[in-house]
Amino acid sequence: MTEIGIGIVGGGYMGKAHAVAMSSVGAVFNTALRPRLEMICARSTASAQWYRHAYGFARATDDWRVLVADPKVEAIVIASPQDTHREIALAAFALNKPVFCEKPLGASLSDSQIMTKASVGHISMVGFNYIRTPASQFARQLISQGAIGDITWFRGEHTEDFLADPKSPATWRTSGEANGTMGDLAPHMINGALALIGPITSLVADVETVHQARPEGTVTNDDHGQVMCRFANGAMGQMYFSRISHGRKMGFAYEITGTKGAIKFDQEDQNALWLYTADEPEATRGFRKILIGPAHPDYENFCQGPGHGTGYQDQIIIEARDFLQAIETQTPVWPTFQDGLDVTQVVAAALASSRTKAWVDVQPA
Amino acid sequence: MTEIGIGIVGGGYMGKAHAVAMSSVGAVFNTALRPRLEMICARSTASAQWYRHAYGFARATDDWRVLVADPKVEAIVIASPQDTHREIALAAFALNKPVFCEKPLGASLSDSQIMTKASVGHISMVGFNYIRTPASQFARQLISQGAIGDITWFRGEHTEDFLADPKSPATWRTSGEANGTMGDLAPHMINGALALIGPITSLVADVETVHQARPEGTVTNDDHGQVMCRFANGAMGQMYFSRISHGRKMGFAYEITGTKGAIKFDQEDQNALWLYTADEPEATRGFRKILIGPAHPDYENFCQGPGHGTGYQDQIIIEARDFLQAIETQTPVWPTFQDGLDVTQVVAAALASSRTKAWVDVQPA
Amino acid sequence: MTEIGIGIVGGGYMGKAHAVAMSSVGAVFNTALRPRLEMICARSTASAQWYRHAYGFARATDDWRVLVADPKVEAIVIASPQDTHREIALAAFALNKPVFCEKPLGASLSDSQIMTKASVGHISMVGFNYIRTPASQFARQLISQGAIGDITWFRGEHTEDFLADPKSPATWRTSGEANGTMGDLAPHMINGALALIGPITSLVADVETVHQARPEGTVTNDDHGQVMCRFANGAMGQMYFSRISHGRKMGFAYEITGTKGAIKFDQEDQNALWLYTADEPEATRGFRKILIGPAHPDYENFCQGPGHGTGYQDQIIIEARDFLQAIETQTPVWPTFQDGLDVTQVVAAALASSRTKAWVDVQPA
Amino acid sequence: MTEIGIGIVGGGYMGKAHAVAMSSVGAVFNTALRPRLEMICARSTASAQWYRHAYGFARATDDWRVLVADPKVEAIVIASPQDTHREIALAAFALNKPVFCEKPLGASLSDSQIMTKASVGHISMVGFNYIRTPASQFARQLISQGAIGDITWFRGEHTEDFLADPKSPATWRTSGEANGTMGDLAPHMINGALALIGPITSLVADVETVHQARPEGTVTNDDHGQVMCRFANGAMGQMYFSRISHGRKMGFAYEITGTKGAIKFDQEDQNALWLYTADEPEATRGFRKILIGPAHPDYENFCQGPGHGTGYQDQIIIEARDFLQAIETQTPVWPTFQDGLDVTQVVAAALASSRTKAWVDVQPA
Ligand SMILES: NC(=O)C1=CN([C@@H]2O[C@H](COP(=O)(O)OP(=O)(O)OC[C@H]3O[C@@H](n4cnc5c(N)ncnc54)[C@H](O)[C@@H]3O)[C@@H](O)[C@H]2O)C=CC1
Ligand SMILES: NC(=O)C1=CN([C@@H]2O[C@H](COP(=O)(O)OP(=O)(O)OC[C@H]3O[C@@H](n4cnc5c(N)ncnc54)[C@H](O)[C@@H]3O)[C@@H](O)[C@H]2O)C=CC1
Ligand SMILES: NC(=O)C1=CN([C@@H]2O[C@H](COP(=O)(O)OP(=O)(O)OC[C@H]3O[C@@H](n4cnc5c(N)ncnc54)[C@H](O)[C@@H]3O)[C@@H](O)[C@H]2O)C=CC1
Ligand SMILES: NC(=O)C1=CN([C@@H]2O[C@H](COP(=O)(O)OP(=O)(O)OC[C@H]3O[C@@H](n4cnc5c(N)ncnc54)[C@H](O)[C@@H]3O)[C@@H](O)[C@H]2O)C=CC1
Repeated sequence: MTEIGIGIVGGGYMGKAHAVAMSSVGAVFNTALRPRLEMICARSTASAQWYRHAYGFARATDDWRVLVADPKVEAIVIASPQDTHREIALAAFALNKPVFCEKPLGASLSDSQIMTKASVGHISMVGFNYIRTPASQFARQLISQGAIGDITWFRGEHTEDFLADPKSPATWRTSGEANGTMGDLAPHMINGALALIGPITSLVADVETVHQARPEGTVTNDDHGQVMCRFANGAMGQMYFSRISHGRKMGFAYEITGTKGAIKFDQEDQNALWLYTADEPEATRGFRKILIGPAHPDYENFCQGPGHGTGYQDQIIIEARDFLQAIETQTPVWPTFQDGLDVTQVVAAALASSRTKAWVDVQPA
Repeated sequence: MTEIGIGIVGGGYMGKAHAVAMSSVGAVFNTALRPRLEMICARSTASAQWYRHAYGFARATDDWRVLVADPKVEAIVIASPQDTHREIALAAFALNKPVFCEKPLGASLSDSQIMTKASVGHISMVGFNYIRTPASQFARQLISQGAIGDITWFRGEHTEDFLADPKSPATWRTSGEANGTMGDLAPHMINGALALIGPITSLVADVETVHQARPEGTVTNDDHGQVMCRFANGAMGQMYFSRISHGRKMGFAYEITGTKGAIKFDQEDQNALWLYTADEPEATRGFRKILIGPAHPDYENFCQGPGHGTGYQDQIIIEARDFLQAIETQTPVWPTFQDGLDVTQVVAAALASSRTKAWVDVQPA
Repeated sequence: MTEIGIGIVGGGYMGKAHAVAMSSVGAVFNTALRPRLEMICARSTASAQWYRHAYGFARATDDWRVLVADPKVEAIVIASPQDTHREIALAAFALNKPVFCEKPLGASLSDSQIMTKASVGHISMVGFNYIRTPASQFARQLISQGAIGDITWFRGEHTEDFLADPKSPATWRTSGEANGTMGDLAPHMINGALALIGPITSLVADVETVHQARPEGTVTNDDHGQVMCRFANGAMGQMYFSRISHGRKMGFAYEITGTKGAIKFDQEDQNALWLYTADEPEATRGFRKILIGPAHPDYENFCQGPGHGTGYQDQIIIEARDFLQAIETQTPVWPTFQDGLDVTQVVAAALASSRTKAWVDVQPA
Repeated sequence: MTEIGIGIVGGGYMGKAHAVAMSSVGAVFNTALRPRLEMICARSTASAQWYRHAYGFARATDDWRVLVADPKVEAIVIASPQDTHREIALAAFALNKPVFCEKPLGASLSDSQIMTKASVGHISMVGFNYIRTPASQFARQLISQGAIGDITWFRGEHTEDFLADPKSPATWRTSGEANGTMGDLAPHMINGALALIGPITSLVADVETVHQARPEGTVTNDDHGQVMCRFANGAMGQMYFSRISHGRKMGFAYEITGTKGAIKFDQEDQNALWLYTADEPEATRGFRKILIGPAHPDYENFCQGPGHGTGYQDQIIIEARDFLQAIETQTPVWPTFQDGLDVTQVVAAALASSRTKAWVDVQPA
């Protein structure tokens, strides 16, 4: 049992999630490396101190450079806004420290490219947590084992409704390309699509801002966007991303059809995977609702009973396990910065297609 | 109670459905006009006679011209394959007889245009039955009353799996544009989209044949197709059509988001409509599953108890009621041939877009 | 194709349903006997005449004796209130005419016994329609084929909410034992339990009136009742019946567990049956939602497409088919009056148990 | 931030869950007391040492007396089999140490009574975790606020299928009353019923062993049991408990009807609560699926996004928060040993009723 000093930049929504994950991942997965909450950084000293106390860190700072440079900080989690990701990651790699960076990788395609280049030879990981549920890991397994045959069709969405009310005021979320729906929400599902089906070769997209005028300001990034695409394996696909989808709270959902069956999943019921296989007698065929349990990836460490359920926080614990394992074994674990860049390429292609109103090829990252 | 002599061309899947509907529509809706099953037509004398006996018609013929011309046949239902629709309809209009024509209107855009032109001044109707369920009629009402605000997003699909098995042999269904997925299945949902959201102004589509080689022949029409579009009211939309969607048996389904709420529907559970309205307190908001009953359109005539359910055949009875009413009042009832042509225009635009790989404008019909 | 003259007593909710069924059953099932709507009877001449016209009967009367005695009335459907069932049935049997009687069989145990005795040697049938859906017929098949092994547990309910509002006024439904929940609603599910699992040998019940004072009167029959029982095959079971179950519109629902699997059904989604079989690998086990189609009993005659759905009225058409077949073949078709009496015995036992607060044995009918 | 030394007896299924909870509860809830994993106990030294290492405890022992007596162990979690609960709890109370005891409270009614008596004046808590989900806490809130009116009906179940296969061998679980379905699973739902509806006054039950002969031994405790009851508030209820319910993995589920609405919940989809309120217009009434989020109890500390979901482990973290708070404030937090005893009384009454085949009154604990 070797300790490793963890430094987290950002103590908000995701900073807390990673702090909690680092507190429990050792007990959950009996990891070789055991995190020690060494230092937390936030924009102000007051908030940094508050987070230190609340989450149980040893020290706090309002300067991420201090955190990155601290010798007792041996691995860095970036949970601050997208426009801070590049600089922090580069500084960490310069000191040869492993970096876990929240999604999206960089605040722009160029940032992501620079970060990916810098990550070569280092341990890097990107925070695509939704694809880490036991259910979605199992979906990947089923597909790769050929359970539903060759894939003919994919439909994915990442839909939420936190800005569905036109009277919700403008905030930092409503400006900056990387904070719009394509920049901020789409990466989860695009990463999901790449993981489940494989590379996207071409696409056509349509992106727009529905509510331009909001109380307290003008919105300058996109509310929703739709994509139609082709995958390298020939499958067709559609995706939709939205922060204005009334009724959808965590709409990371997909439907996949193959030549032998089909799979459906919706993160709002994250402990079930729906599977249809065509090899049943006609009278007893149907989508079966599989409740996730110890027979599925990464579940048993959380609970011995099937159907008892994992939740959002557990996805972050799985990420922490993978990050620690990558560090310990000095072997990259998916998804690395390169995988994050693949996603950014698709986002960039979609934004370009929406501007030109034409099909575009996706550049290999 | 005035009788009206009905002639049906075709005694297969839909010919039977219309025969049954004409037998019971009077008792269900207490219609002013009461159908008399006068004559049925099929390709062979033997089958025509068999249908006559089975469905209870007075007479049978193997020549639709005889049926159309017969003086006791006062209204005509066309339930034969798409390539027969044009000639029969034209002959009927020439005798000033009302025509109900199964979808799709014509076997081609040109057929549909000719038929629509010929229908002017006559009673015409097209067989878009799915949009006639009490649930989908109620969805239309809710939208037009502004229950979910301005529409921002539409997703529709018509998916089935009758050709999902690559080993299913080639048949007449696997050749002829009008028998492919875009020609045969898409019209239902496109008509649904137009009815629910309004005209489509532009679209981009991708259509393909997945299983080109089948036992007993080569497939020359499309297995599935996807569309991305804009509506005249500004809403974005996606559609998908498929006959190879394993697990989907009657996947006429849509999701509609507006600025105040959302609606979901799936024909596989046709007696429920899901409604989300944003005007609830946050803690008690959620999609509600409304079970269709006497409070909804065209339900009470079938059953006094809510949630007791209508089925496929009942949609055809509702169509028959509307057709009889159009004849009696000599006033067109939606959807007329013009409405059918609107749908064909969208299908034509989608096929064109798929060939040119570009966004195309939809021609007003 | 032989015609048979049908007389229906009652033109309300169920009188209409049977009139519609008799209008279309011939076309749907290509029956040997073809119903002719000969005469309808209602309490007043005016309403009888109105029904005659609306449903398309040849003649009308306000005296059921006239109807029963009429030589052109060859089969009788009793769709009038429970307290009229006995007299009408007896008169019909006296003339050796076949009788279809709506549920519950008689207005009391004694009535049911007399009716059952009188039915011997005649064609009789009771209107338990819910068990006639293709889904529930398929459930019966699965169980009898051993698909879920030996039955260990049954849970059934028949719940609706038409009197859930305490401010709903008292009516004829709120007095008379046969009009209470145990008398009126429970028979459907008790019949279902007997059909699915087999005879009930003993039970304990608890029945009560929740809202005794209603606008316009005092309620003298029961609002809801619960039963715990043992079946002859050893299975345990629970049932619940209610007319005050807010949110339940057609809550005819059951769950059945066996030693090899389980089945679930809810009439509110009557076109799906849920099946779990334990013989799958652990990772892919789950309840599968089977959409009913041509592979299931009595579906294909309504529609060739799976998942397209049947509804309430279609159940009554299936009943009509069975009644006509029983008449034509002069062979009893389940459920006869004897089967209706079996149900009444269970209801009587439940009411007795609720009074004595003790387990009681169910008398073999 | 005051540390508190935690000792856990048992390192299996629940010992681990509590160890993980104690590791993260501080960061999740920013608790005043911060757990320090001081000592873990298991039956053998080897396993105790293994657990120490895996979960991150400072020390280990194979003698619970050592753990209880250790001065650095300031609070005790009992996560060992039921027959060890009494002795450990008594020893801890003798040293005035707070005790969290896994359910069921004692191995028998007498044990539970002795433990409850001993708990007076001390901090005690019982591990009823399922009722702690944000969804079930919200259900309790809704009911107590009168959202569904006066309760008329309750149906609860705790069903799993870990022994559904008759070929599963006999183990320690298949002997000992406290390890049977009534002893081991029923307490969760009985506690739920008491929390949601209030005290049970009388009941009748039927309990049995379905599979008496299993490989490797004879089963001497119960496989399933059913209960029918009355609550002090007059509501009727039914419950079912089973370890042989094929298809049910975590079937802690309830349906509650009141005079103004209804609530449904199923732990297998633990992040949704279904609510029906009768005060909507008839056309838009329906059960709404509320996705749990920050507007509901104890959710926001786990995630800021609604619908993102909590899981099994999070329930245990909520328990840990309550236990720490009780200790810090020296004020009992529900459910104490007294509440655990209330549950045991109901179980005892059910077993008695099953033996005597009669309704029995439930003794106030
Ligand atoms: N994987 C997921 O499910 C989610 C990922 N995210 C991602 O996590 C990252 C953080 O987002 P949230 O936690 O929602 O933001 P937040 O606003 O809740 O917290 C941001 C934190 O970063 C700190 N911060 C800001 N600028 C800083 C700077 N220059 N130096 C040091 N600290 C600074 C703030 O003080 C604050 O503690 C973003 O990249 C976002 O896209 C956010 C939400 C969900
Ligand atoms: N609205 C809906 O849900 C559906 C609509 N349809 C439409 O209904 C129409 C009929 O399709 P199905 O009933 O499935 O076909 P089918 O193959 O089951 O029956 C076709 C009938 O037309 C007759 N027929 C063929 N050629 C004829 C001719 N030249 N003259 C007279 N009779 C002729 C055949 O003898 C046969 O009775 C098509 O336009 C189809 O697209 C089909 C299925 C469902
Ligand atoms: N199977 C099912 O799903 C249902 C069965 N039922 C059963 O059907 C029967 C009729 O109930 P509803 O149709 O709901 O009643 P309703 O009140 O809608 O209609 C009753 C009809 O009986 C007629 N009638 C009453 N007394 C008569 C008399 N002495 N002679 C001749 N006609 C008389 C009335 O004029 C009226 O036309 C009852 O036995 C009821 O339990 C009712 C509803 C559903
Ligand atoms: N709340 C819930 O969801 C659940 C509660 N439980 C309850 O938790 C308790 C433990 O059950 P599991 O964790 O499933 O059992 P388990 O068999 O997984 O673990 C039992 C642990 O207790 C230890 N142990 C046994 N006898 C001991 C003794 N005399 N002294 C010290 N340690 C001893 C064993 O070494 C082992 O580490 C039981 O009371 C059970 O009813 C169990 C499962 C779920």
